[in-house]
Amino acid sequence: MTHPLSVAVAGLGTVGGGVLKLLRDNADIVTARAGRPIAVTAVSARDRTKDRGAPLGGLRWYDDPVALAGDPGIDVVVELIGGSDGPARALVEAAIAAGKPVVTANKAMLAVHGAALAAAAEAKGVPLAFEAAVAGGIPVIKALREGLAGNRISRIAGILNGTCNYILTQMRERGREFADVLADAQKLGYAEADPSFDIDGIDAAHKLAILAALAFGRPVAFDAVHVEGIRGVSALDIGFARDLGYRIKLLGLARQTEAGIEARVHPCMVPETAPIARVDGVFNAVVTEGDFVGRVMLEGRGAGAGPTASAVVADLVDLARGRSAPVWGGALSDAPSVPMSAHVGPYYLRLMVVDRPGVIADVTAVLRDLGVSLESMLQRGRAPGEAVPVVLVTHETRESAMRAALDRIGALDAVLEPPTLIRIEAG
Amino acid sequence: MTHPLSVAVAGLGTVGGGVLKLLRDNADIVTARAGRPIAVTAVSARDRTKDRGAPLGGLRWYDDPVALAGDPGIDVVVELIGGSDGPARALVEAAIAAGKPVVTANKAMLAVHGAALAAAAEAKGVPLAFEAAVAGGIPVIKALREGLAGNRISRIAGILNGTCNYILTQMRERGREFADVLADAQKLGYAEADPSFDIDGIDAAHKLAILAALAFGRPVAFDAVHVEGIRGVSALDIGFARDLGYRIKLLGLARQTEAGIEARVHPCMVPETAPIARVDGVFNAVVTEGDFVGRVMLEGRGAGAGPTASAVVADLVDLARGRSAPVWGGALSDAPSVPMSAHVGPYYLRLMVVDRPGVIADVTAVLRDLGVSLESMLQRGRAPGEAVPVVLVTHETRESAMRAALDRIGALDAVLEPPTLIRIEAG
Repeated sequence: MTHPLSVAVAGLGTVGGGVLKLLRDNADIVTARAGRPIAVTAVSARDRTKDRGAPLGGLRWYDDPVALAGDPGIDVVVELIGGSDGPARALVEAAIAAGKPVVTANKAMLAVHGAALAAAAEAKGVPLAFEAAVAGGIPVIKALREGLAGNRISRIAGILNGTCNYILTQMRERGREFADVLADAQKLGYAEADPSFDIDGIDAAHKLAILAALAFGRPVAFDAVHVEGIRGVSALDIGFARDLGYRIKLLGLARQTEAGIEARVHPCMVPETAPIARVDGVFNAVVTEGDFVGRVMLEGRGAGAGPTASAVVADLVDLARGRSAPVWGGALSDAPSVPMSAHVGPYYLRLMVVDRPGVIADVTAVLRDLGVSLESMLQRGRAPGEAVPVVLVTHETRESAMRAALDRIGALDAVLEPPTLIRIEAG
Repeated sequence: MTHPLSVAVAGLGTVGGGVLKLLRDNADIVTARAGRPIAVTAVSARDRTKDRGAPLGGLRWYDDPVALAGDPGIDVVVELIGGSDGPARALVEAAIAAGKPVVTANKAMLAVHGAALAAAAEAKGVPLAFEAAVAGGIPVIKALREGLAGNRISRIAGILNGTCNYILTQMRERGREFADVLADAQKLGYAEADPSFDIDGIDAAHKLAILAALAFGRPVAFDAVHVEGIRGVSALDIGFARDLGYRIKLLGLARQTEAGIEARVHPCMVPETAPIARVDGVFNAVVTEGDFVGRVMLEGRGAGAGPTASAVVADLVDLARGRSAPVWGGALSDAPSVPMSAHVGPYYLRLMVVDRPGVIADVTAVLRDLGVSLESMLQRGRAPGEAVPVVLVTHETRESAMRAALDRIGALDAVLEPPTLIRIEAG
């Protein structure tokens, strides 16, 4: 097994360039760990003239990425085009059909088409590797699928989007509002010109769908993920979070409940003493709870050329060594997805109300009528006749009851804005 | 490949019992992830009559563990006897000689004999797996050997001994002295009756030697690890650490320097904002710095039946799937070990001195004469003519200069106790 592993790379953007650079800079290490050289021999990208920061001389160039799958000199196809459909999906399907192992960083494709792609790969006996699809360089796919293979996983919690974590960290550290921090993040390149994919939670939901499938051994179910982004998080709520001993994080959460599997992405209040609460800036982290191993947290850079290339090359080293695992870990369950309305947990509720006698009594009467039990109430400062924020923290409450309460509270005359609701999580 | 993987377990203590329990409780998951059942079919332990918390009926029993290696019905030998030599080593050597893959949790054996065992295993083409030997259930061996395989590792820092981390955490949280906390930890079962192996840093040094070999791709060199334990850490220094924005942790540190590989275990002052500073109680953590991935931290339970069994079974699942890696990762370097005297870094120095004019001038003159540059000095409180603590923090200093300074400072009349020196680390 000393002939080189011959690799085709489709997509030469930031990550593709990073993979070429890593394989060149660390060729000695990669060869030793892989047991043979790993050589990129063919590439495909849109613009043949663009400078990729790495010499492309001697590589076969394909304008059509799908054609890579038909190149008989290629052992492995690396898909770094992106997008859930289009050329990325066509290439991966063609490579699997041609019996060529695939390495991909494409979380959107896996979240949406992962079940069908896994079926195709397993029918052909072809490895489909995707360490780079979740949490960048952190080897979380390998940890779930191999390192923690002996455990029944009860819960996964992750900071899965570095853009959101950067924005929330900046808001907390500088006491600034969401829109200001987003604008700065865009200038610095930490957020896209069209940031919706990140800040509305879609990207995190793609990753969570993949993690949940691995953790619970069930087909990917992206449509069953409840998704809320961070646009509604205000500096006011970040301040209250601090006062209450919490930090606000956008978490991806999946857990096994008696009714089935709950999967959701939304802003959370996390106790500031929880390890995941301390993961700041562009860092990602994934907490796994297993019945034998207990709590394990993995933390690192979730994006960028270097970390993502590190994950892609780890998959290539595995393939060079002949190591692979079933796409979704091999333990398929048929546990149903449970809807968000069935979620049970504590809630933080923040209202803007007119400061006058009787308002709190009206609000708490609604909560009492819906069986929502209060743990604490906080009204800081007085401004008779004017708008003041009121914070309520509940005991464990069913989401459906909380939603009904919000509708009624939002309709009260003295409540001036739609209430803000943030779920509280253990971290 | 649907016939069961037939496993022999040598040593039925806490961990051995945990392995039997895991394989029984999670047989469905393990079978799905391994692609076939994993069945313990033979065992060896000292006392056949002891209750192991798991039914042993139907298993072949061997009084002599080494005889397991000769059982033709066994596919894999799991060594959980412990100890760097004696029956553990004899069994592992016999199993390798018989061509049977070995799974072991034995860090002492690997730290001392790992180079010879690896050579024997590789000569026979037999996998030698040891995820359980370092940091319990945290899949750190897999991360270094596979997940981060594309990276040149520059540095490893780890909290590798749960007993020490528990004691230091209790000292900090409760403001108590080492001896008191140790006595309580012994009562609670968090420390052994003879605690030397843990609190003198030997156990952490075994694990660090293994991690350094994996990270830097060189033969294990336990003798080259500089080791200091936590007996000398006082409540006074923990208080000063807090005042200066640090926490005291026993770290295992290995880094690649221009002169070679530095490996050391000793108490460190770590900035309280560093993620590893927040890892408290019995938790372990390993921080890895790779050239492409950046900083990755893995955190979890480093000991106990459940976490260790989780790691042993992960190795068994790998073997059942036919996945393996070269013992030390496959990238052997011949970088020399560098002695502790060549270490360069900032230092915390705490003296007990007579509170009288001129003492600080004498101390700082010694530092000046040896080229040690001071970053800060702290003397809290006054007690003319009596003993007071003085804290000095240096800029980057060479260990040999610091040692010479300590000798001279300790000899000053006004210095009443041997000075306390704690190295400052970035975390």
